[in-house]
Amino acid sequence: MHIEIQRNADISLTKQIYHSILDHIRSDLLEEDLQLPSVRELSKQIGVSLVTVVKAYQKLEQEGYITSVQGKGTFIRKTNIKEAEKKEGAISYDWQLSIQDYLPRSQFARFHQVPEKIHLSSSMIDPGLLPNRYLEQEIHKMLSENPKVLSQYGEIQGDKELRQAMVEYLKRMDVPTTPDNILVTSGSQQGIDLVARTFVGPGDVVVMEAPTYPGAIDVFRGRGATILTVPVDSDGMRVDLLQNLCDKYKPKIIYTVPTFHNPTGAVMPTKRRRQILEIAKSTQCLVIEDDPCSEIYFERKPPASMISLDQDGHVIYLKGLSKILAPGCRIGILAASGSIFKRLLAAKANADLGSPLLTQKAIIPFITSKRMMDHLKKLRTALKIRRDVVLEILSQHSPKEVSWFVPKGGLNVWLTLPFWLNTDHLLLEAKNEQITFLPGSTCFPTNQENHYLRISFSYMNEPQLEQGVKTICNILQLAIDSKIKQDSSPYF
Amino acid sequence: MHIEIQRNADISLTKQIYHSILDHIRSDLLEEDLQLPSVRELSKQIGVSLVTVVKAYQKLEQEGYITSVQGKGTFIRKTNIKEAEKKEGAISYDWQLSIQDYLPRSQFARFHQVPEKIHLSSSMIDPGLLPNRYLEQEIHKMLSENPKVLSQYGEIQGDKELRQAMVEYLKRMDVPTTPDNILVTSGSQQGIDLVARTFVGPGDVVVMEAPTYPGAIDVFRGRGATILTVPVDSDGMRVDLLQNLCDKYKPKIIYTVPTFHNPTGAVMPTKRRRQILEIAKSTQCLVIEDDPCSEIYFERKPPASMISLDQDGHVIYLKGLSKILAPGCRIGILAASGSIFKRLLAAKANADLGSPLLTQKAIIPFITSKRMMDHLKKLRTALKIRRDVVLEILSQHSPKEVSWFVPKGGLNVWLTLPFWLNTDHLLLEAKNEQITFLPGSTCFPTNQENHYLRISFSYMNEPQLEQGVKTICNILQLAIDSKIKQDSSPYF
Repeated sequence: MHIEIQRNADISLTKQIYHSILDHIRSDLLEEDLQLPSVRELSKQIGVSLVTVVKAYQKLEQEGYITSVQGKGTFIRKTNIKEAEKKEGAISYDWQLSIQDYLPRSQFARFHQVPEKIHLSSSMIDPGLLPNRYLEQEIHKMLSENPKVLSQYGEIQGDKELRQAMVEYLKRMDVPTTPDNILVTSGSQQGIDLVARTFVGPGDVVVMEAPTYPGAIDVFRGRGATILTVPVDSDGMRVDLLQNLCDKYKPKIIYTVPTFHNPTGAVMPTKRRRQILEIAKSTQCLVIEDDPCSEIYFERKPPASMISLDQDGHVIYLKGLSKILAPGCRIGILAASGSIFKRLLAAKANADLGSPLLTQKAIIPFITSKRMMDHLKKLRTALKIRRDVVLEILSQHSPKEVSWFVPKGGLNVWLTLPFWLNTDHLLLEAKNEQITFLPGSTCFPTNQENHYLRISFSYMNEPQLEQGVKTICNILQLAIDSKIKQDSSPYF
Repeated sequence: MHIEIQRNADISLTKQIYHSILDHIRSDLLEEDLQLPSVRELSKQIGVSLVTVVKAYQKLEQEGYITSVQGKGTFIRKTNIKEAEKKEGAISYDWQLSIQDYLPRSQFARFHQVPEKIHLSSSMIDPGLLPNRYLEQEIHKMLSENPKVLSQYGEIQGDKELRQAMVEYLKRMDVPTTPDNILVTSGSQQGIDLVARTFVGPGDVVVMEAPTYPGAIDVFRGRGATILTVPVDSDGMRVDLLQNLCDKYKPKIIYTVPTFHNPTGAVMPTKRRRQILEIAKSTQCLVIEDDPCSEIYFERKPPASMISLDQDGHVIYLKGLSKILAPGCRIGILAASGSIFKRLLAAKANADLGSPLLTQKAIIPFITSKRMMDHLKKLRTALKIRRDVVLEILSQHSPKEVSWFVPKGGLNVWLTLPFWLNTDHLLLEAKNEQITFLPGSTCFPTNQENHYLRISFSYMNEPQLEQGVKTICNILQLAIDSKIKQDSSPYF
């Protein structure tokens, strides 16, 4: 079991231990009946006092997550686990707990596993909005002509033809690249991971937006990075705060989603993009420009990419295609220059020796055809309609205490609730109605703020969105009403 | 630039620095004209004396790899780089060198990049031996019936139908698994990487065979592991030496290729497999059983897998399919149990959110059909013929000083040369004849032994093998003759 402690965090050490163990239990990393390390062992392992550990264990025991048995030790108790679910029968793997791991507190995957009736938590694209039939026909044609695609490893860097096709595609979006500067990845998640494994180690400083994309938080945590955060306003990362941070802490990497920021939807203007590059230059650090969906704009085309403004090889640009085409192929690319690129290429070799050739060849005919641009037009139109449904329902039904930002593109609406509401708890109520959203806490790398939530409008159709958002509004209204009632009660 | 120093190694620190920089230059991670850190900086960075660094730089300068310019610094000089090859023109990315990375000395990828006329260095399968047409037709059928495969993320753990199919397939090979214990990976390279990123950190001890699979060396180095090695005999890892090592150093992981060991071809008998498991149990460590090609046996079926003998969840079993089916799909699986499995699943989420659904669905119809077993039969026959060609040519043409092990399966023949021959140098001569082999040094995790080489017989057809192996025999004969002549010369 790996417990992360941040000594300079605002949260007490006891709370950090408590949350870390709870996360392990919730994400099913710790099984029923497993023995936890003794208080003495754990305090030694993570270097905190005995009292700190005792307090964390007490809280977990009070809440029914663990049991202490006199003279035997402390054991996991998942109160809601049925005996019947213990599939592995009588075999005990208790010894495995002694194997320390390097896993970060992973929040992200949890919200992607249980499919609910109305799934507003993940920003996948409705398969009905994707050109499956066309793709299928073109794959058939490609494989009939060249079945050997199935029997060859591709280049580690990625298929040359695809890299060439991506150069052309990216050119249309003001992203200047060359086939030599492109590395094909398994989605942009792998892109983030490659950068982290190459350049981030224990204690290295990474600057992230708060809130930000949860999948990136997990990766940097997993490398033992010290994560510092910069708040986001309607123009994205607050550059005024970034300069000081960089002067003081000399980060190695600044991670940003400048266009249709995830989760807020903010778009960073060109001026700020330049300012960040200036800061990167003076600090000699790298910038990861994560671009999952700049194609999906509802009004006008967003500003030029940061990599197009970069003269000195500071930007590592990541483009995942899964939000616009063939998530079943999981194609992404990474663009960078100089030795930074070469080192990332070496990391890709270690990670998986290159992405599958089949998925790379599969998308080339479509992405190079005129249909691609038509498809994007249709996708923008369809998603704008869905966004508008969400905004309309929110205007009509949300409590007056709730506010949101109108996204001019992307896949999400970000809601701000009164600070005394906790969306981790409200999610449980939503799940009772078979609805999921992403609780805001998941998106904060350090101090988890609980009074936000993200609604993704890309996966569900209009009637589902209508029903889902109405139900969320009801849940919020009930929670607010009950709090007001409580506050005005003479007994409190 | 990341320089690894092992203080308890048999090689001097100067030599380690020298080799590390040279590796970076050779694998193109350092570009022409890049400025190296000053002697003072580097000595501080890696914690060695000034003299040690000065000596390493002097050696590199003598050999023409770097130049010191009075008052300016030390710069990379690739003597054989032509001016014309400097593609990135006048732009200088010198500042990037200040970004420290965590890359291991990667030897592996180098030998997979330059396609030579006769490619005996990599154990890919000749596409002509793989059922591309059948696969292609079945993919067409699958996608016509279910085009939505293209537009969906699969489960992080891997497609359920594929996991079920793999359970059935593995059962035939005495590998007991359940769909819940299987994780689909992007080749077994990713399997190794997932285990390493989850359980191996700086200073953790990993035991490997020497020689072993180079791709695994790079991964464990990349995690900062302390690698200890155990020699291999005709029965695989020398278990008699393993026990002491484990008692003394408490490894976290033992990595082994027990069946048709890469590169030697050795098969570990059941008794040794059990002994390793006993040692793992008493040491409370994990065993990675890497199984790239137990299907490819030429005489009788190899002994049962280690995971089939394991009662307590010590074994993490890796099966890559790329050596037997559709390397263009890069499908592998990992099987493990208990919390070890769950933690690996969480690591997979961080790495890439799951393998592409298309490649997983693509192989299901074939792998579950009767054709799969027929295909394996044919593959075994074809590869046995190729192995026999190599062995025949070796018997007829190799110098009497060269010996080899007759592999009873797998894809490689491992040659032992007189200790005073260096296959790193001989490879250059082979490349002049447009032939590649894998120099043995690549396969040694710690003390690189230079008088071995690996010939893969899976990628080339019989006439190519004949020509290639004959040429290698000639090169060896010439090197031996010239040494004998030199030794008997009155002037030396």
